[in-house]
Amino acid sequence: MTAPAPTARSYPAERLRAFSQRVFEHFDVPEADAALAAEVLARSDLRGIDSHGVARLRTYHDMLDHGRINPRPQVRILRESASTATVDGDNGLGLVVGPRANRIALDKAAEAGSGWVSVCNTNHYGIAGYYVLEALERGMIGWSMTNTTALVAPLWGAERVLGTNPISIGFPAAEEPDIVIDMATCAAAYGKIEIAKRHGEPVPDGWAIDSHGVETRAPDAMIEGGALLPLGSRREQGGHKGTCLAVMVDVLSCVLSGANWGPFAPPFALRQEIPSRSVGRGIGHFFGALRIDAFIDEDEFRQQIDEYVRTLRATAPAPGTEGPLVPGDPEREAEAIRSRTGIPLVEPVVEDLRAIARATGVAFD
Amino acid sequence: MTAPAPTARSYPAERLRAFSQRVFEHFDVPEADAALAAEVLARSDLRGIDSHGVARLRTYHDMLDHGRINPRPQVRILRESASTATVDGDNGLGLVVGPRANRIALDKAAEAGSGWVSVCNTNHYGIAGYYVLEALERGMIGWSMTNTTALVAPLWGAERVLGTNPISIGFPAAEEPDIVIDMATCAAAYGKIEIAKRHGEPVPDGWAIDSHGVETRAPDAMIEGGALLPLGSRREQGGHKGTCLAVMVDVLSCVLSGANWGPFAPPFALRQEIPSRSVGRGIGHFFGALRIDAFIDEDEFRQQIDEYVRTLRATAPAPGTEGPLVPGDPEREAEAIRSRTGIPLVEPVVEDLRAIARATGVAFD
Repeated sequence: MTAPAPTARSYPAERLRAFSQRVFEHFDVPEADAALAAEVLARSDLRGIDSHGVARLRTYHDMLDHGRINPRPQVRILRESASTATVDGDNGLGLVVGPRANRIALDKAAEAGSGWVSVCNTNHYGIAGYYVLEALERGMIGWSMTNTTALVAPLWGAERVLGTNPISIGFPAAEEPDIVIDMATCAAAYGKIEIAKRHGEPVPDGWAIDSHGVETRAPDAMIEGGALLPLGSRREQGGHKGTCLAVMVDVLSCVLSGANWGPFAPPFALRQEIPSRSVGRGIGHFFGALRIDAFIDEDEFRQQIDEYVRTLRATAPAPGTEGPLVPGDPEREAEAIRSRTGIPLVEPVVEDLRAIARATGVAFD
Repeated sequence: MTAPAPTARSYPAERLRAFSQRVFEHFDVPEADAALAAEVLARSDLRGIDSHGVARLRTYHDMLDHGRINPRPQVRILRESASTATVDGDNGLGLVVGPRANRIALDKAAEAGSGWVSVCNTNHYGIAGYYVLEALERGMIGWSMTNTTALVAPLWGAERVLGTNPISIGFPAAEEPDIVIDMATCAAAYGKIEIAKRHGEPVPDGWAIDSHGVETRAPDAMIEGGALLPLGSRREQGGHKGTCLAVMVDVLSCVLSGANWGPFAPPFALRQEIPSRSVGRGIGHFFGALRIDAFIDEDEFRQQIDEYVRTLRATAPAPGTEGPLVPGDPEREAEAIRSRTGIPLVEPVVEDLRAIARATGVAFD
């Protein structure tokens, strides 16, 4: 999630979705795939994760325009068992490869109780949470992970070796909202460093190191050759644990599928440096699904999740707070508001969209 | 892991293992189960995780002595599918129920590509990493999680709602050491607070809150009605992410199996308070296994893990450090040393073992 920034104006989510779809179609992405990709971006905007919505369309546009992403991938299963599969994304949009691979995991789970799919030769897949919401729609527990371009130093390291490698998992409730976890495994998102830079403000302790590996609060020192810190930040506060989580995501998404892991992940944006070596194909994702009634009565499970949510909400609040949130609360609140009032876009994003409109001939506004 | 404390003397691991086995047998635990339970404790001592080895025998002894643990459980499968099972541990020792349930996950993975087992009606299962080492022995990726008695406040909470809920996962290498992750989802272990108290020292920032929910560095303030903080500690440093991880472990281990989750987990030690409500049976575990060749050629995977380990080790070190560790390094080093020199026990643990010897008639020293 990104903090507030000067807003130009708000746009209806559907209008942004339709624009994204037409832009993908302009680059020869088949209509159904373009609609799917646009839907993933729109869901991110609706859920308040501005950094992963239409604000990223410029990057997808550039990658397609330079022929770096295959608009018509032949997504195929390389290997499979009753409950697992390895998928080759044929260098397609992650926004298309991801949903297809996730569907394989869900279908396997429907048959075998669980389904696990590791994906290579793919690209940035949007918000990790999108895939988990798909599982929840089918009444299943869903998991989603991906590696990203390296931005994070492992604890005691002085350089970028690991991606921000998010983990998402969701548990369906009955009457209460579902529990939806969606978290990067670093202390804070790169987007927050950029926002601090724009505002000329220091970042909090524990977020970043400079190019010498020394902790810094200066946004520029991180951006220019420094690195983000893993969740936990320092040894004493558990920075080794955040490192472990990032490694876990990396191995499941990339080593298991044959994708590029760690510092060898290819860049997502044109301006980023291309790694010195390739150890696989594209980046990697990992999807999982568990059919609840393979373990326990589904109604019983959902009722216990209701109780779980109520128990978290009933926790005595720490001073100066309103008490713990349930994982997924902020995104759900954003979705409730934004589906009524539209998606607020900052001026640089609106300018990007206008530039895309000029380049592609797709009308924006 | 616990920090050093005054050592009485060192004991050969095998001698402690044999003592534990005879103590379990004294309480009518069948010989094979007693040997297994003692092996799990011994492995913890060897790997340097002193808090989970023979130092816990006193608690197992007390629970068996008071009839709170069933020495001869009929562990049974409540429900299963090709790749999943729910297991009822019949209130047995977690050290016996855990290995049996884990074996079901491994056997399922051998057949269906993956295996996932959620366990209810069980007790403390030792170190999470033990189960992952079993998977690695069979050349598989292993996962292990468990809930524990509530000790951790969710972010913005002022009371104990969540367990320290560890996650362990292991990836097999070829020539390099395997990657073995084993981490609690709180910022620091409770044992470290106890050590600081013993030494009369404050704990680092970000570990604990007092009974009012205010962050504290005083060990007593945490111990007497306070709580541990989740990994990430505070909102700005990602404390909501540690909260999410603890919830994830709790739901997979307990809600999915029908065990007691969150604040309702039964206490492991006699002196601990019994929760006001029960929402299931016993505590819960969650085990998983992935067969590597269900995804990718096993040799290729192992060689990439070798490369991964070498890449982590080649990372430029942060000032004042020797560079990043590979997950599992500290435990592996401890095992190499302790298998030669024995297990160093602090005086209070030796006294506990002598008291057990007197109470059971099993010779100690």
